[in-house]
Amino acid sequence: MNDDRILLCKAIEIAKQGIEKGCGPFGAVIARDGAILAEASNRVTLDSDPTAHAEVVAIRQAAASLKSHDLGGCTIYCSCEPCPMCLGAIYWAGIPRVVYACDRSDAAAAGFSDKDIYDEIMLDPAQRKITFKHIAGAGGEEIFKAWEQYESKIPY
Amino acid sequence: MNDDRILLCKAIEIAKQGIEKGCGPFGAVIARDGAILAEASNRVTLDSDPTAHAEVVAIRQAAASLKSHDLGGCTIYCSCEPCPMCLGAIYWAGIPRVVYACDRSDAAAAGFSDKDIYDEIMLDPAQRKITFKHIAGAGGEEIFKAWEQYESKIPY
Repeated sequence: MNDDRILLCKAIEIAKQGIEKGCGPFGAVIARDGAILAEASNRVTLDSDPTAHAEVVAIRQAAASLKSHDLGGCTIYCSCEPCPMCLGAIYWAGIPRVVYACDRSDAAAAGFSDKDIYDEIMLDPAQRKITFKHIAGAGGEEIFKAWEQYESKIPY
Repeated sequence: MNDDRILLCKAIEIAKQGIEKGCGPFGAVIARDGAILAEASNRVTLDSDPTAHAEVVAIRQAAASLKSHDLGGCTIYCSCEPCPMCLGAIYWAGIPRVVYACDRSDAAAAGFSDKDIYDEIMLDPAQRKITFKHIAGAGGEEIFKAWEQYESKIPY
């Protein structure tokens, strides 16, 4: 069994063990150069935190342990294909590689909204179920001008 | 000036004030029935947390204050159109309404990846810049069976 399969099985085992602890049925492991940096279950209902998907919790843990928002060179192992929130987090963290077991259709069959949210995100804001109101001219453009002029900024 | 504009201007002001404190140039406010539940700046580099976008930080705060992962009935005011991670978080939190100032093109012009990530998420996993490896048959399907059979589960 190669490393990818071993670490994916670990993410699956975390997902299964989490259920009885009150976690959502998802698990994630982040590793770099064969070393595990973080492992997590979904803690949405346990922590009253809608963002506490396994992947997001693991990314926060790994970044805290490295004291860096950049997780370049890492692989994230996910019991299920990351939802759009988690996939966005993976891009922002600079994680270049995702290994996963179940997919968004499996999650949908189990009652989770992953596929619906993918479908929504692909629509123009005006066509989504959520109401989007764009107010131009409220002064937002001044923010990026101030950012551009701020000499101590850290790009990310 | 109506409430939407007032609260959006507050999110913009938070974004501007955050820059000098080391925050990223984004701000968010969450309100329900005219009451502000949370307000936040982007804290990615300040906290070494790639998920700490203003919207995600505000969602965590509002959910913690309500002791619920469900932010139904809330509006989120964003200095810039939410990125896919934040939009996913908004869907998971059940927030039905988004008011925003700048958009993904403005963010791109300021050097942020929001638009690139939207473009990537719309692709099939095999076409993305990130490597996606799907390992079927690793046992992932047992997770959702266990979830289905778990009688104390809290759907979300």
